[in-house]
Amino acid sequence: MNNQVERGNTMNGDLKIFSGTANRPLAEAIAKHAGVELGEVDIMKFSNENIKVAYKETVRGKDVYIIQPSCAPVNEGLMELLIMIDAAKQASAARITAVTPYYPYVRSDKKDEPRISISAKLVANLLKTAGADRVMAMNLHSPQIQGFFDQPCDHLLAGKVLCDAAEAMGTENGVVVAPDAGSAKHAGHYAKRLGLPLAILDKRRSDDSEKPSMENIIGEVKGKKAFIFDDEVASGGSLIEAAEVLVKNGASDIIAFCVHGVLSGNSKERIVNSAIQKLVITDTVYVPEEKKHDKLQIVSIAELFANAIMFTNSGRSISGLYSRF
Amino acid sequence: MNNQVERGNTMNGDLKIFSGTANRPLAEAIAKHAGVELGEVDIMKFSNENIKVAYKETVRGKDVYIIQPSCAPVNEGLMELLIMIDAAKQASAARITAVTPYYPYVRSDKKDEPRISISAKLVANLLKTAGADRVMAMNLHSPQIQGFFDQPCDHLLAGKVLCDAAEAMGTENGVVVAPDAGSAKHAGHYAKRLGLPLAILDKRRSDDSEKPSMENIIGEVKGKKAFIFDDEVASGGSLIEAAEVLVKNGASDIIAFCVHGVLSGNSKERIVNSAIQKLVITDTVYVPEEKKHDKLQIVSIAELFANAIMFTNSGRSISGLYSRF
Amino acid sequence: MNNQVERGNTMNGDLKIFSGTANRPLAEAIAKHAGVELGEVDIMKFSNENIKVAYKETVRGKDVYIIQPSCAPVNEGLMELLIMIDAAKQASAARITAVTPYYPYVRSDKKDEPRISISAKLVANLLKTAGADRVMAMNLHSPQIQGFFDQPCDHLLAGKVLCDAAEAMGTENGVVVAPDAGSAKHAGHYAKRLGLPLAILDKRRSDDSEKPSMENIIGEVKGKKAFIFDDEVASGGSLIEAAEVLVKNGASDIIAFCVHGVLSGNSKERIVNSAIQKLVITDTVYVPEEKKHDKLQIVSIAELFANAIMFTNSGRSISGLYSRF
Amino acid sequence: MNNQVERGNTMNGDLKIFSGTANRPLAEAIAKHAGVELGEVDIMKFSNENIKVAYKETVRGKDVYIIQPSCAPVNEGLMELLIMIDAAKQASAARITAVTPYYPYVRSDKKDEPRISISAKLVANLLKTAGADRVMAMNLHSPQIQGFFDQPCDHLLAGKVLCDAAEAMGTENGVVVAPDAGSAKHAGHYAKRLGLPLAILDKRRSDDSEKPSMENIIGEVKGKKAFIFDDEVASGGSLIEAAEVLVKNGASDIIAFCVHGVLSGNSKERIVNSAIQKLVITDTVYVPEEKKHDKLQIVSIAELFANAIMFTNSGRSISGLYSRF
Amino acid sequence: MNNQVERGNTMNGDLKIFSGTANRPLAEAIAKHAGVELGEVDIMKFSNENIKVAYKETVRGKDVYIIQPSCAPVNEGLMELLIMIDAAKQASAARITAVTPYYPYVRSDKKDEPRISISAKLVANLLKTAGADRVMAMNLHSPQIQGFFDQPCDHLLAGKVLCDAAEAMGTENGVVVAPDAGSAKHAGHYAKRLGLPLAILDKRRSDDSEKPSMENIIGEVKGKKAFIFDDEVASGGSLIEAAEVLVKNGASDIIAFCVHGVLSGNSKERIVNSAIQKLVITDTVYVPEEKKHDKLQIVSIAELFANAIMFTNSGRSISGLYSRF
Amino acid sequence: MNNQVERGNTMNGDLKIFSGTANRPLAEAIAKHAGVELGEVDIMKFSNENIKVAYKETVRGKDVYIIQPSCAPVNEGLMELLIMIDAAKQASAARITAVTPYYPYVRSDKKDEPRISISAKLVANLLKTAGADRVMAMNLHSPQIQGFFDQPCDHLLAGKVLCDAAEAMGTENGVVVAPDAGSAKHAGHYAKRLGLPLAILDKRRSDDSEKPSMENIIGEVKGKKAFIFDDEVASGGSLIEAAEVLVKNGASDIIAFCVHGVLSGNSKERIVNSAIQKLVITDTVYVPEEKKHDKLQIVSIAELFANAIMFTNSGRSISGLYSRF
Repeated sequence: MNNQVERGNTMNGDLKIFSGTANRPLAEAIAKHAGVELGEVDIMKFSNENIKVAYKETVRGKDVYIIQPSCAPVNEGLMELLIMIDAAKQASAARITAVTPYYPYVRSDKKDEPRISISAKLVANLLKTAGADRVMAMNLHSPQIQGFFDQPCDHLLAGKVLCDAAEAMGTENGVVVAPDAGSAKHAGHYAKRLGLPLAILDKRRSDDSEKPSMENIIGEVKGKKAFIFDDEVASGGSLIEAAEVLVKNGASDIIAFCVHGVLSGNSKERIVNSAIQKLVITDTVYVPEEKKHDKLQIVSIAELFANAIMFTNSGRSISGLYSRF
Repeated sequence: MNNQVERGNTMNGDLKIFSGTANRPLAEAIAKHAGVELGEVDIMKFSNENIKVAYKETVRGKDVYIIQPSCAPVNEGLMELLIMIDAAKQASAARITAVTPYYPYVRSDKKDEPRISISAKLVANLLKTAGADRVMAMNLHSPQIQGFFDQPCDHLLAGKVLCDAAEAMGTENGVVVAPDAGSAKHAGHYAKRLGLPLAILDKRRSDDSEKPSMENIIGEVKGKKAFIFDDEVASGGSLIEAAEVLVKNGASDIIAFCVHGVLSGNSKERIVNSAIQKLVITDTVYVPEEKKHDKLQIVSIAELFANAIMFTNSGRSISGLYSRF
Repeated sequence: MNNQVERGNTMNGDLKIFSGTANRPLAEAIAKHAGVELGEVDIMKFSNENIKVAYKETVRGKDVYIIQPSCAPVNEGLMELLIMIDAAKQASAARITAVTPYYPYVRSDKKDEPRISISAKLVANLLKTAGADRVMAMNLHSPQIQGFFDQPCDHLLAGKVLCDAAEAMGTENGVVVAPDAGSAKHAGHYAKRLGLPLAILDKRRSDDSEKPSMENIIGEVKGKKAFIFDDEVASGGSLIEAAEVLVKNGASDIIAFCVHGVLSGNSKERIVNSAIQKLVITDTVYVPEEKKHDKLQIVSIAELFANAIMFTNSGRSISGLYSRF
Repeated sequence: MNNQVERGNTMNGDLKIFSGTANRPLAEAIAKHAGVELGEVDIMKFSNENIKVAYKETVRGKDVYIIQPSCAPVNEGLMELLIMIDAAKQASAARITAVTPYYPYVRSDKKDEPRISISAKLVANLLKTAGADRVMAMNLHSPQIQGFFDQPCDHLLAGKVLCDAAEAMGTENGVVVAPDAGSAKHAGHYAKRLGLPLAILDKRRSDDSEKPSMENIIGEVKGKKAFIFDDEVASGGSLIEAAEVLVKNGASDIIAFCVHGVLSGNSKERIVNSAIQKLVITDTVYVPEEKKHDKLQIVSIAELFANAIMFTNSGRSISGLYSRF
Repeated sequence: MNNQVERGNTMNGDLKIFSGTANRPLAEAIAKHAGVELGEVDIMKFSNENIKVAYKETVRGKDVYIIQPSCAPVNEGLMELLIMIDAAKQASAARITAVTPYYPYVRSDKKDEPRISISAKLVANLLKTAGADRVMAMNLHSPQIQGFFDQPCDHLLAGKVLCDAAEAMGTENGVVVAPDAGSAKHAGHYAKRLGLPLAILDKRRSDDSEKPSMENIIGEVKGKKAFIFDDEVASGGSLIEAAEVLVKNGASDIIAFCVHGVLSGNSKERIVNSAIQKLVITDTVYVPEEKKHDKLQIVSIAELFANAIMFTNSGRSISGLYSRF
Repeated sequence: MNNQVERGNTMNGDLKIFSGTANRPLAEAIAKHAGVELGEVDIMKFSNENIKVAYKETVRGKDVYIIQPSCAPVNEGLMELLIMIDAAKQASAARITAVTPYYPYVRSDKKDEPRISISAKLVANLLKTAGADRVMAMNLHSPQIQGFFDQPCDHLLAGKVLCDAAEAMGTENGVVVAPDAGSAKHAGHYAKRLGLPLAILDKRRSDDSEKPSMENIIGEVKGKKAFIFDDEVASGGSLIEAAEVLVKNGASDIIAFCVHGVLSGNSKERIVNSAIQKLVITDTVYVPEEKKHDKLQIVSIAELFANAIMFTNSGRSISGLYSRF
């Protein structure tokens, strides 16, 4: 096994992990798990806002991983990533993997009105043009996004990490809740993994009245500990709505799990003041200290990414690392 | 307006519509609606099964549309389409549009197990390589598939055509039924358009037992005329299952609407013997005489495609042709 | 002639000019000179900072020009431009021209230290990938940048506009000053056009001492009206330094001309307090009201771009529009 | 030497050979000669005829060879090959070689009438698009086909294998016969290798009459053992015609050698009933049991392909493996 | 018809024909037949041998044809062609066609020894990279070369022009002679067109002796007027050999027809002193005055190319212009 | 370190250096410094001037470097290089580096008049199309040219080699002279490295008179040993002009240093008869014996290229090899 890793190393070049400025704590955690130091790179901005990237150590012939999830400021971070990839390519890196645990523009994945851009596809094309040989991402909004890439895209999933957190809280008398019908399939995976029943909130009207009747809940929540699962929390609006319905229907506890904690605007205040008792997110998106609060729990996907990177570097299959959700 | 069309024509070249062998009746109907004759092309097979395509009229500088939905034999039809595109390109067509009302491999749109192909993306790449400048398709299984194309892809929708058929049957006392939660959003569009309430069948278990409890129906179906809407009917299995549940729950009538009538295997017998009273499909897929029966009604999307082709040829916006579902 | 224009129009599609958010006043001025209304496009940002672009009128078969110079915030503006191009391509525009009067990352045009990106080239590649068929820019930092494009790049020059402004001030007893040896060639063109002598400031040491001796001035400035010409003013530092040397050497008046007025940081205060009497810039970069002051004069290149766009749309040569500097 | 192989292995990744469904016995024979097990891959067809390919073992970082000659059903096999390549690429194979001993559409290599496809070139483009880094084929119909590939194409030749078979039969009193003037050059190579004289059948008329005078035989065949060499036998028509002319001209024995045994339609009956005493083919094309008969002898090219694969994997020159015909 | 041409013109842009330095008389003849003046372009060489091309009139939006067959010095001419194409592309030509009546490196069309280049394919790729949208050539050495192009390639044939020349000499008592078996198929087309019998010279040995026995002549030549047809004459060696055999076999007259008159080295002397009475070539390759002699007759393919260019410009089919040989 | 090199070797393949015909002595020197034999390759020309390249040893899986600077005949040499690259690619080389110490068309790096080609960019595209994975060049005319490449381009600089030569002559009482303002920045690097003062010749007029007054010299040259530095000497005209001005201004000695010794036309005579006492060039361009003379000194950059090649082959950083000028 070790031998195989060694051989793979030789084939793909020595492993080098670099971090952009988007989420350096995550990058450091990944590098630590991978047993390497983060590579040294200078990233600065001129007075005209132009970004300059200069690697301070050789990348020639190396297997380079650039960690840069989509965090605020989003478009700055994306341009920085593209420039980092280009600089590594021009400096003769053997292979470059863009590691975007939270993939930029992941929700712009379809053309649901005329004359708009499917920007998640555009980003895939830009990454390829800049020189990314591979992409590594987590919980893409729709699984079809993998088809936006011509180069291989490793799609990691946070299911195991979130379930471990749920189990640590105790799942007895629990129920997994999908916040809307669209996420029912996904939530079902969590229910199965946790050995819990499933309930679905359905905001759509069941008759032709205009008002959505939020009373539609498939499955039983009364007196139960509700575990809501979703892929992303931005303003927190739909989570809080769901919590209200659950309360109205007699749920005893409400705990939410979201992979990507975008936490935009005044989401902190809204969540703190809501019926949600706990919001568990991962560290794909950087959360500054001022956004943290007692209800917020952050679990790390750093080890999972570290493993995926090490396996990819050494040419071992990473399918064993995948959970299915 | 006419003037604008005239100018457009000049820009894109004269309109030429050709048909592969997959669904010639549809191609003829489209051409008739477009007011042109189908172009002449010889398609034959050598004794070694190699397909040969020879256009019998000039395509030089023309705006060429090749009509070839995915019909049995599917892979033969796809290779034929690729060869037709290549031959038109080599013969100096000004622009080539692959018109695939039922898009090949449309359901292979994600990588839900390791080491498989996202073949709907592969097909998009093959069409581009062969020389297709554009693609025109109907009701793709997921809207993200549009992002598989680098070239423009016009995505037409059969909503209006199917709703017209439903209304012709009388929608009083009706309810729109989504056969599973995954298609609930889509069915909702039909419900809104028809002014009917929505019901959703939910095959997933509501507790942790292994057996799916089909009794989950959101909304009221008892004594109602149930209109099931789905994008495709192949073996007919899930439609029939849905019908059984509806019957058990007291629906008075059961009518199914599916855009693409693949109708594989012994689906005819199964549907004839089922509780479904009427199955309405479109003519995107060719239905041979022996597969037809009294319960089957075929409505045509030829005029819609003819309009899209004429508007594209003349450079007019086709967004007005789109329904939203 | 008119006839030829008409024909060209038909070939390239009707002219449509859209503006991003970077410099809408310039776009409006260009559209007005071109005799058309700016096209309608919605540009908004989600709470997660993702940009969304939706054209509100058809671009199918049109000859689309998107005006988006590099203005603060620079990287936001660049991503917005890429998304606008992509959306227009997916909406079947016949031809798309990225009009970037001040080209993004224009100074990152060489690899003068190891492992950096030639980002001006990267931007050229990104524009092409997004779908730009052509690029139109003004006074690129080095003329070699045109070679970064595979697609045609029209390179307009502000020489005539700036010289007109100089002449309006009276050029008697004047001298054209190059602020350093590197810009001497460029300044020579202005000197010739204005019929004025040339002087060059040379910051490099003439002996082997460490301190640059700014006293090196080739040519006579004493008692003369000094016209400094440069391509860009950002912080204003080098302009002000030059002014000080000129004052020390007895220049009677100091007037600066820079094509691109980036005017970053506290440049306003520095210039107001400097020996510079007048700073003439063009409107390639948007200057907000609070950055304006009495010493600042802005001349417009809108008509030049409008002509270049109209000529390109109609297929006429634009070489007559070029000045040589 | 061994050492060099080892190093090559490391560079290109471990060797993995997979078989499509076209000619599994050949793939097994090649794998055996190469000293490896065939890799495990599931290939199935949905009820809608869509092919699904799933590799059951990792290909990440491997040097993958996919064996899939063009056998009936030809177009199914080609699509299957394209999907296999795509799935391997998406699963991060280090290098993918399409091994098509009988290359698909090999005879469609020129545009000898207007508005047809040079489909052998189209297939080359499709293989590249799907992700093939290299192609390995045998006895292409014309040597120019190698120029259809942008990627390297190894062109193996069956000359040695067929000559060995001829020599095993005894070549005394033999003559090599080219069945038409077009194949005379090729047949000459066999004649030289076997140390036999050459004769050429010429079906073209020697005057302007319409009827081809088949009596034209260059060289002496009377009383001789005629060895006919051709690249492919499909319906067998031209071979049988040639045999008749040879009989008429007094040849004592007639033995035919064809690289690719397509054997379409009723070729079995025709050959059994013809003057041909023996038909020697290779196993590039799969021959089902029911097509075999006493006159048919199949010689294997498996070892040659196994060697080419091993040498390519280890980075050794394969030019020593080539015969010239 | 005229109307259609007019429309086509508009679509592809106005017709512009430019000439490189390889064969300006041919370009002038083509332009004259096309009813246009040759476009003005400066082509010069710096003292360091670098070629500079500057178009002296606008090509923006034009349909540009660059006439540059492969003439001595061959590699200079090819680089000049590539630079002309690039300059036209950068100057925004609407469409560029490389017109190479004698295609560069046409005989390097296969890999008949290890580790060589298929340079005819390389040239195809270089032309595409420089910016050629189309290629127009005459009598490619093998018809498969058309498959080397991804862009359309119009392949004109000199059959009619050469046959007209033959008929003007009187074809009574004539015989068409193929100089070797490889060109027999081609010569057959001429025989059919001229209504003459065919004879084939066969240089290959009919037994296993080493010496080629040139006495092999299929068909009757004694007392006849022999018309030899070949695609190219370079040193003239094989033509002269053929003539000697024909003389020995009693041919009364010997007239040779070759499409491309490369006429390298001392071919003039050799032909003048040979049994060949007349050598008819076309003007695809420029023949300087000093290479002309009484036996040499040059027929022009200028009108054929002019027609192909005009038809291509106006979007009409050119298949009617093709002869089959 | 050795270990690292060994590993790198394995990754990129064994090192192979081949020489075209442009400058074989340089290639031999490089190979010798790299400790390898030049690879064997046959390069010949057919009577029709077509170049043929055949590698006489395997390149499969090798890391191939092809040494071919731009020497007379320039265009022949460039085509030869393209064919060598293509042949190596088709023969399955692992990686191909075009080593062009003097890069072809290096001065055609901008579009300073309408409708010309930026041929240095075209050459970059042609090299990529032929199959070059990397390019290695020395002292490009402008540093922006690196941005013409999509693939990595290693840019070596001759500064150290030329300064060593200067120091060997004794630099006491010396002054570095830039022959015009455009090269002042570059010359400044030499001045700093040699610890000498800088002087600049300025051919531009200091007033508006037409005659350039060459008397403009920034810095002191009287009684000093003048070291002129430039990137290239072709006809020698501007060097000689500079020498005359220096003489007129009292320089005691005049020694010129130019990286690329193109030495075209009668430059030998002109330099021999000029005030220049010594002209130092490198061996990037081949200098035939008859062009050599007593004033000419050639210093070799072979070791620098050998090191760059060895480091690239073994995957070590080459930034340590760079001087900054």
